[in-house]
Amino acid sequence: MEKQTTSSLEIHPLDQLTVEECKLAVSLLRDEHKGKTLHIKSVQAQEPPKKIMTKWLDAYHAGSPIAPPPRVAYCVYYILDDRHAEELWLNLENRKVVQRRSFENGTHPPMDQPESDKIEELVLNEPAVLEALKKCGVDGIQDVAPDGWMYGCDSNEPLPRLVMFLMYMRDPKTHHPESNIYAFPLPFVPVYDVLENKLVRIDWCATGGDGDDVNEINYNSGNPEKSIVDNMRAGEYYHELRPDLPLREDLKPYNVVQPEGPSFSIEGTRVRWQKWDLRVGFNPREGLVLHDVRYDGRQTFYRLSVSEMTVPYGDPRPPLHRKQAFDLGDIGAGYAANSLALGCDCLGTIKYFDGNLVHCDGSVEARKNVVCMHEQDEGILYKHTNYRTNVARVARRRILVLQTILTVANYEYIFAWHLDQAANIELEIRATGIVSTQYIDPGKKSKWGTIVSPSVLASSHQHLFSMRIDPAIDGHKNTVAVCDSVLDPLDAINPHGTGFYNKHTYVEKSSALDADQSVNRFIKIINENKINPITMDPVGFKLSAYPSALIMAREGSIARNRAQFAKHHFWITKHTDDEFFGGGVWTNQSSVERGGVQDAIDRKEDVRNEDIVLWHSFGLTHHPRIEDFPVMPLEKITVGLHPYGFFTENPAMDVPPSNQQFNRSVEVMKTRCCNKM
Amino acid sequence: MEKQTTSSLEIHPLDQLTVEECKLAVSLLRDEHKGKTLHIKSVQAQEPPKKIMTKWLDAYHAGSPIAPPPRVAYCVYYILDDRHAEELWLNLENRKVVQRRSFENGTHPPMDQPESDKIEELVLNEPAVLEALKKCGVDGIQDVAPDGWMYGCDSNEPLPRLVMFLMYMRDPKTHHPESNIYAFPLPFVPVYDVLENKLVRIDWCATGGDGDDVNEINYNSGNPEKSIVDNMRAGEYYHELRPDLPLREDLKPYNVVQPEGPSFSIEGTRVRWQKWDLRVGFNPREGLVLHDVRYDGRQTFYRLSVSEMTVPYGDPRPPLHRKQAFDLGDIGAGYAANSLALGCDCLGTIKYFDGNLVHCDGSVEARKNVVCMHEQDEGILYKHTNYRTNVARVARRRILVLQTILTVANYEYIFAWHLDQAANIELEIRATGIVSTQYIDPGKKSKWGTIVSPSVLASSHQHLFSMRIDPAIDGHKNTVAVCDSVLDPLDAINPHGTGFYNKHTYVEKSSALDADQSVNRFIKIINENKINPITMDPVGFKLSAYPSALIMAREGSIARNRAQFAKHHFWITKHTDDEFFGGGVWTNQSSVERGGVQDAIDRKEDVRNEDIVLWHSFGLTHHPRIEDFPVMPLEKITVGLHPYGFFTENPAMDVPPSNQQFNRSVEVMKTRCCNKM
Repeated sequence: MEKQTTSSLEIHPLDQLTVEECKLAVSLLRDEHKGKTLHIKSVQAQEPPKKIMTKWLDAYHAGSPIAPPPRVAYCVYYILDDRHAEELWLNLENRKVVQRRSFENGTHPPMDQPESDKIEELVLNEPAVLEALKKCGVDGIQDVAPDGWMYGCDSNEPLPRLVMFLMYMRDPKTHHPESNIYAFPLPFVPVYDVLENKLVRIDWCATGGDGDDVNEINYNSGNPEKSIVDNMRAGEYYHELRPDLPLREDLKPYNVVQPEGPSFSIEGTRVRWQKWDLRVGFNPREGLVLHDVRYDGRQTFYRLSVSEMTVPYGDPRPPLHRKQAFDLGDIGAGYAANSLALGCDCLGTIKYFDGNLVHCDGSVEARKNVVCMHEQDEGILYKHTNYRTNVARVARRRILVLQTILTVANYEYIFAWHLDQAANIELEIRATGIVSTQYIDPGKKSKWGTIVSPSVLASSHQHLFSMRIDPAIDGHKNTVAVCDSVLDPLDAINPHGTGFYNKHTYVEKSSALDADQSVNRFIKIINENKINPITMDPVGFKLSAYPSALIMAREGSIARNRAQFAKHHFWITKHTDDEFFGGGVWTNQSSVERGGVQDAIDRKEDVRNEDIVLWHSFGLTHHPRIEDFPVMPLEKITVGLHPYGFFTENPAMDVPPSNQQFNRSVEVMKTRCCNKM
Repeated sequence: MEKQTTSSLEIHPLDQLTVEECKLAVSLLRDEHKGKTLHIKSVQAQEPPKKIMTKWLDAYHAGSPIAPPPRVAYCVYYILDDRHAEELWLNLENRKVVQRRSFENGTHPPMDQPESDKIEELVLNEPAVLEALKKCGVDGIQDVAPDGWMYGCDSNEPLPRLVMFLMYMRDPKTHHPESNIYAFPLPFVPVYDVLENKLVRIDWCATGGDGDDVNEINYNSGNPEKSIVDNMRAGEYYHELRPDLPLREDLKPYNVVQPEGPSFSIEGTRVRWQKWDLRVGFNPREGLVLHDVRYDGRQTFYRLSVSEMTVPYGDPRPPLHRKQAFDLGDIGAGYAANSLALGCDCLGTIKYFDGNLVHCDGSVEARKNVVCMHEQDEGILYKHTNYRTNVARVARRRILVLQTILTVANYEYIFAWHLDQAANIELEIRATGIVSTQYIDPGKKSKWGTIVSPSVLASSHQHLFSMRIDPAIDGHKNTVAVCDSVLDPLDAINPHGTGFYNKHTYVEKSSALDADQSVNRFIKIINENKINPITMDPVGFKLSAYPSALIMAREGSIARNRAQFAKHHFWITKHTDDEFFGGGVWTNQSSVERGGVQDAIDRKEDVRNEDIVLWHSFGLTHHPRIEDFPVMPLEKITVGLHPYGFFTENPAMDVPPSNQQFNRSVEVMKTRCCNKM
């Protein structure tokens, strides 16, 4: 393979590895481990140190580019022969090893799909599993679908690399490959040692309801002749399997037409749209990342990402208390990213970005359409009617949507960044897909969940996200201010008790904070070195947080220790290179969060007027509705970043006012309906 | 005028008064007050008692309609000769007075625009006002624009009918009628007695900043030669007045095309769309109201409305501490409704509804387009990818939007009800328009607000809404359950401390409750008489609340007493006919909320399995950004109502899966951009 010297002139230092770079990295990695069998977990571009990047970016934006830092591939892999995991950093230009690090005992790299698929097959051939299936009245494995799950740790002792299997079945009446397996959960969990390729044990799940013993396990609902599968029934979302449910015929087409094309321009991974200028990044762990986000030539955010998500379940009955996924750290948003389809996932005029992924065998996939980008009309941006003249001025809100969709076994997440013309950025998360289910005996109910289909319980759970905001508000020295609405004292100035104001408290040391809606608390990121000439206050952006419930698991529990980030809504830390993951570096089978936000604040660093990172933890506490089955209509979370004293007026004042000539709406004909109102 | 007997067959009993009915009512009202000069405040249809309506609706939906209740006009007006206000109910069929009621002493009907306009002229001719203008260095009234404001009460004593004027100016350099007057606030407030047509006094506003005395009033910024107007500068939102700001030229057209027309059908005020069936109502006080909302033939909500909004300001310095508007009770959302314009306020295929309004002189206006209705693509409704086969199933979310836009002097509110195909209802509120401003001396800052333009302070304030939800979840006997996520005790069943569940507490007596995000609190409205056959729980809907800060004004303050509804997030009351307004019946100059939610809960009625009303109070606490000037980009609030155990599966499973043939998206040509990523 030839050295990729020329390409580095075209590749931006924040770009993902090209397919060629991935191949080179794999080849160098293999050279480094000749004669060994490797199981590659991920290969990705190592982000250059921020100090180097900021200098590079300054030169780049000034139009006098300097030499880029070398391209470095970061590899995570098992040396299977040694049952040993390693990280390796490779300089792709001089082809030298930069650094090599072994995983600590008890620390496990993420799962991957081929790994799970391989043992899924092995599990189905285990006699003990066949025996367990028989106990449930299931004869043969034709329809059985074991979902490999991360083994949510409940012990502080180092454990071997384990995968647990949640057992499901396709509808035995149809055997259809698209049958919804989550309508047929089976009450046992094989636990498998991945590196030793051996079944460790089978855990049986309680099948009783409220008041029943946790040891209440009915293999056959008390009737040895009966299969428990007979207690369940199909719950299909695949329309071809729903002869009972004709599709609606009264939904008329709705097309978005952009006769002159989209308003954005693209150069490599650089996107320019409505004064925004940003870099679309992608990596195996976080998936979509926004880099070097600027508005009208001014820096706003150096890097924006979803850094982690944990999904702990609320049913404490073993073994399902171990259901606690870290969907980014345990799996990877990049690996979980869907190939998006025109007209399905995205409406309008779409630009797609592909993602380069290295698989366990070293093969490189340029996955199509992992990110889609398009514009959307989002209603009214602003309006005012002068009541004296009745003259109105209205501008419509156009947004630029950057969307990626993850599938993590049963669940789907839609992450979308929205940019608008008033310099607002929003992260919109939609949770959809299929709720995780378990078997429950007929006629029983459980406080830990909702019966979503006969004998199928969907238990309560949380989706707790860590959003990582690396700000660059007119530069890298920023400060976080906590803003609370505070009542004035009752005194001569405030005799009627109506006075209140917005009190600012600056965060001096790295620390964690909670939301407080009672005082309308919000977080501002400001640059104290840059004063707005009109407001006379520092320029800044406001975080419109999502003030949700935090992690439920008890203080001191392993479930909580693993996800310290989910204990508080806001974490303010000093920037450190490679500190990207709110929930820690290695989450799979972790017993405590390491290298996450808790460790970062424990450094007790100065964060006032420093290069800082703001992390926002938020989520959904989901007590499933039956309406979430067989597939869940979206639940939506929106977090916003809004300029606050950054400009000297509404930055969207130059958006052309809306008019019919431009927007071409259509009035429903009066003849088509009476119009009595 | 002929009796309108035939029309009642076509008019739905929940419809607004027709133009003819309005005219008849005015004529009957005049007959009742021969020889007197009336100033009409409002004339609207009196909603029939619920007992009668439910019977009528049952028969109507069963296809065997019974005789409708008589049409009754409800009139509010002044008898100017007597300085006396009255309410009158008129049966439009037998033309008889049903009831007549005098306003209590100290109770005032709402303001109206002609009333304010009339005295605006008078104020401008008051010598004392001209003198005050001169003190400010303003010579003549050519550019002066006094905004008539409700006199936010600070006394428990009955007061005459007062209007206060916030004084502003058009840009004296352009005199343009569309000049933004809020960029030129003047520091005095004339107070006017409306019924006596006399200036009561002129209040001067503090012009100092933090640390200055409240009596610090600089008429001329210390320079008798100088006009304070010179300290300010134009802040125009009307683009023709912004030669400094060329419009963006890179925004490409974005058209919504529905080649087969919209998916809704309309019959009078009845709308049917995607299994929804509802009645679009309109009245002078609440504006848009949804009636008799059904999904797939089942009752969900009897009536949905925004019942009140109060806007208290945080600067306690007199006289501006009196800025506390009740935008519905003091003005009326119907009277404030904009005539919406195609291609500006609404995009796509639009159906408009008109609103009939009676003005103070008895003239009847059929205001065009006060409500617009259209469909919108709202992204993905649900998606699941089967990771074993890589087959995805995705449905897009189509919503039906019913939108109305209010202008209340400087501010705009956009109220939009969104219905979707999964039986969700959302109320989306956008706040836009222009922030209320006041003068501040050059170089000063104030903790009570933000300098948004030189010498212009936009003070902190709140927008506190009362959403009224009259549920009919499969019938009128409903119960409110408070759902909190509760930790299990650490015991043998929960040894790892991970257990939690959704605890339901039924509300037995009319009462108020607060949001509590720490326990993920949500409110369910259930029908205990109807058990879901799968979940075995009562059918219900969930309220996804907006858990915002409540009213800041101190306990015991008049500002707080006037807006008891804003003290708590949730109010559960027993339904009582004509109890429509969360903030009380007469808010203008009120010193305490009367007939609102506090009075309703004080009745301490049984609300379990009864005909109940749920009121949700929420809002924005707005510390203005300079980016909110000269016109504010939207701030958005969304409140949702979601089926929860109402169906036996996701009700949108019959929505056709999305495909390119139907949606006709366009991929950006690879040739138009490099596609390196």
